[in-house]
Amino acid sequence: MLFSIPFALYYDLNQNLHWDFLICSSITILFGYVMRLSTKSEKNAEIKKRDGYLIVVGGWICMSLFGSLPYVISGSIPNFTDAFFETMSGFTTTGSTILNDIESLPKSILFWRSMTQWIGGMGIIVLTIAVLPLLGIGGMELFVAEAPGPTKDKIHPRIKETAKRLWIIYFGLTCLETIILFFLGLDFFDAINHSLTTTSTGGFSTKQDSIAAFNNPWVEAVIVVFMFIAGTNFTLIYFGLKFKFKKLLNNDEFKWYLTSILVVIFSLSLFHFSILDNTSFINSFRRIAFQVVSIITTTGYATADYTMWGPFMSFIFFLFLFSGASAGSTSGGIKIVRIVLLIKNSLLEFKRRLHPKAIIPLILNKNTVSGQVTYNLMAFIILYLFIFTVGSLILTFIGVDFLTSVSAVASAIGNVGPGIGSVGPANSFYHLPDIGKWVLSIFMLMGRLELFTVCLLFTPYFWKRI
Amino acid sequence: MLFSIPFALYYDLNQNLHWDFLICSSITILFGYVMRLSTKSEKNAEIKKRDGYLIVVGGWICMSLFGSLPYVISGSIPNFTDAFFETMSGFTTTGSTILNDIESLPKSILFWRSMTQWIGGMGIIVLTIAVLPLLGIGGMELFVAEAPGPTKDKIHPRIKETAKRLWIIYFGLTCLETIILFFLGLDFFDAINHSLTTTSTGGFSTKQDSIAAFNNPWVEAVIVVFMFIAGTNFTLIYFGLKFKFKKLLNNDEFKWYLTSILVVIFSLSLFHFSILDNTSFINSFRRIAFQVVSIITTTGYATADYTMWGPFMSFIFFLFLFSGASAGSTSGGIKIVRIVLLIKNSLLEFKRRLHPKAIIPLILNKNTVSGQVTYNLMAFIILYLFIFTVGSLILTFIGVDFLTSVSAVASAIGNVGPGIGSVGPANSFYHLPDIGKWVLSIFMLMGRLELFTVCLLFTPYFWKRI
Repeated sequence: MLFSIPFALYYDLNQNLHWDFLICSSITILFGYVMRLSTKSEKNAEIKKRDGYLIVVGGWICMSLFGSLPYVISGSIPNFTDAFFETMSGFTTTGSTILNDIESLPKSILFWRSMTQWIGGMGIIVLTIAVLPLLGIGGMELFVAEAPGPTKDKIHPRIKETAKRLWIIYFGLTCLETIILFFLGLDFFDAINHSLTTTSTGGFSTKQDSIAAFNNPWVEAVIVVFMFIAGTNFTLIYFGLKFKFKKLLNNDEFKWYLTSILVVIFSLSLFHFSILDNTSFINSFRRIAFQVVSIITTTGYATADYTMWGPFMSFIFFLFLFSGASAGSTSGGIKIVRIVLLIKNSLLEFKRRLHPKAIIPLILNKNTVSGQVTYNLMAFIILYLFIFTVGSLILTFIGVDFLTSVSAVASAIGNVGPGIGSVGPANSFYHLPDIGKWVLSIFMLMGRLELFTVCLLFTPYFWKRI
Repeated sequence: MLFSIPFALYYDLNQNLHWDFLICSSITILFGYVMRLSTKSEKNAEIKKRDGYLIVVGGWICMSLFGSLPYVISGSIPNFTDAFFETMSGFTTTGSTILNDIESLPKSILFWRSMTQWIGGMGIIVLTIAVLPLLGIGGMELFVAEAPGPTKDKIHPRIKETAKRLWIIYFGLTCLETIILFFLGLDFFDAINHSLTTTSTGGFSTKQDSIAAFNNPWVEAVIVVFMFIAGTNFTLIYFGLKFKFKKLLNNDEFKWYLTSILVVIFSLSLFHFSILDNTSFINSFRRIAFQVVSIITTTGYATADYTMWGPFMSFIFFLFLFSGASAGSTSGGIKIVRIVLLIKNSLLEFKRRLHPKAIIPLILNKNTVSGQVTYNLMAFIILYLFIFTVGSLILTFIGVDFLTSVSAVASAIGNVGPGIGSVGPANSFYHLPDIGKWVLSIFMLMGRLELFTVCLLFTPYFWKRI
């Protein structure tokens, strides 16, 4: 929040927002200090798995509670439900917004809004690469540590060191994008804000029309590239920066990520070109490339409204809400590696059915995936779809229409941002009932923390003493 | 087809339909005879697994091809695509129809239409109880044979004997329902047709308005009971008829089937009563009970249009398209036992996550479900949803709207009949493009044969020589 003060002084001096930010920071710091004083820390106390879950979930909720203070205190988003939704959407790097006139907000508030996504992205990188694999969730141990391989493949054994290196990459990408966007003609404020929300695959924009507002193909191209990078496993980016390109090209998920995005963009451009009358192929390609990368990486920027492109495009983009990009990136959703492994395994199932006595292994990165990991993957998908169903049930129950409900929930769990129906890229989430916003906030958090972490707290098993 | 001739002589003598049926029967018999003559049968030749798959799938397709002859030759459904769709919908006991004015068709043709469902139901009973478990599809071996228990639990070891006993039950149920419906005031023709399509959970009606046409609560109550019975595992009905009620009450799936239907009917009646203004609770209960049992058992009769009851009801009924009733019945869909096991297992997963060293087994009917069977179950669900997605992609691609596409495909794979959107219970499938009807026909067959059987034929593994 303190970082927003310079912006408040420079852009919004007459609104006295710097005092608001100072008050909010003070409250947050004070609360932290009281918490620290009121809890005993035994020397050499070890954090147990159970504590880990509580810390992660509790931390994210606390951040969102205190993070919504600037909106409420400054009066930019006076309704607390809306402010909390916007903050949770920020920290989970979702990008769904309740704002209907973004430009009317003070710039320092918009900067804070972008910062929530950037901070959230930082948290996610460490969490998915260093913490969650230890908890063994949804087969994540597989994607990061490349399980049976030599340990040197792990970036660095200690969490602190790993985090530091990844954060340098994260920070560097943000600076680089800011500079490029600035040179392409964006003003400094827009450049830095969009860089913060690209690198975190967040998708908050400072413009009501999102990236369409700039109407600049070069800006779009640069953002597409950075969205793609932000959707790549950060471990791989690290190796890439060390010129170990072999690691990139030997990585199954990266290969699938790259080729499937290219194939999808090309074929959907053809389809888009064929159904729309007054458009050139180049124009179709420009719109499709941006929207596909934006949704698959779960960023959620918009340069066009894909809900206007007929039922097939709507359904395709609905499916993208589930996919996500690479594991170990800031993108949400199921992740490409999980989808690839599941489709592979389903095909092998047919082979196994015909040759029941043969051992037909599932291969990833030239290694066999163990039965336990395959099982965890399948359990993850089933939980994902189960939670999606429960969420849609709740939203339709409170009267939200079918398409909006299913896509809003899918978008929330996948941390994408826009959906289809009445929460498409041209609309906001403002019109949803309050209870729907709370439910979606919880679902964003669930999705962000790979489901198990949050859901576990809702089970009786967690609260039972061993 | 020969059974339709008496009906043609009695009801449609002036239309000379008996000749049409005679021609169709002759063609069918002739084709069978030629097939028989043209294939060598070695003495004591054994049918291999691979042959089994081909026989089952090929048999169903042949039946549907020849079964559509009466429609085409009589001119009742002159378009071959429509006729094939209607026949496949019959033999798979789906119940989706392309007819928009059912009463205008000759009665003997309507009888043939109902017969296709009844014959299909017969095939399914034997297939699911006696043949598919041998192929080990989707954990089916579990539900029927009660795997680790004593062999006396299996109705009878030999397929022929098993089939005979189940068919007696099937035939008996049909006769009983015909008699009751006749005494409740339906004419003989309506009584027998609706009995044929209830017992097979098919759902073809001789009335355009389906069961609503009779507007008789007793008729509805009787049909609800028979739909429920037809959705019960036929092995359990056999034990029930032998007064071995303990078997029924110790069966986890039956308990879940019964209680969940009661709970769902009661709570949805309350909801229905609360959202509609001019209705009594009794009326809500009557409508809901009928629609819930009709869709969950995948029969598909209608007494009301659930798509008019708001987004929550639409979504609930959309989910029902997936559920299905008991394994080992004529109902389609995922089946309750699979859903219960998956939800149970997902919950246990949380417990396992907290106690990684403990062995926490999945229990069904007081026996532990093996890891392999759990794995097969999960693979089945994932394949089910994968196929559902592919189907929806195809339908939206040819321009069908989102809701109609997803629900038409879900309804086809689940062998239910109606969907939501423009294929709701008050509409037909007539307006879909031809290619959509062919696709849905294939999906009906896939769903009916528990996915693996049909999908396997589309894999290269199947056609490779070992």
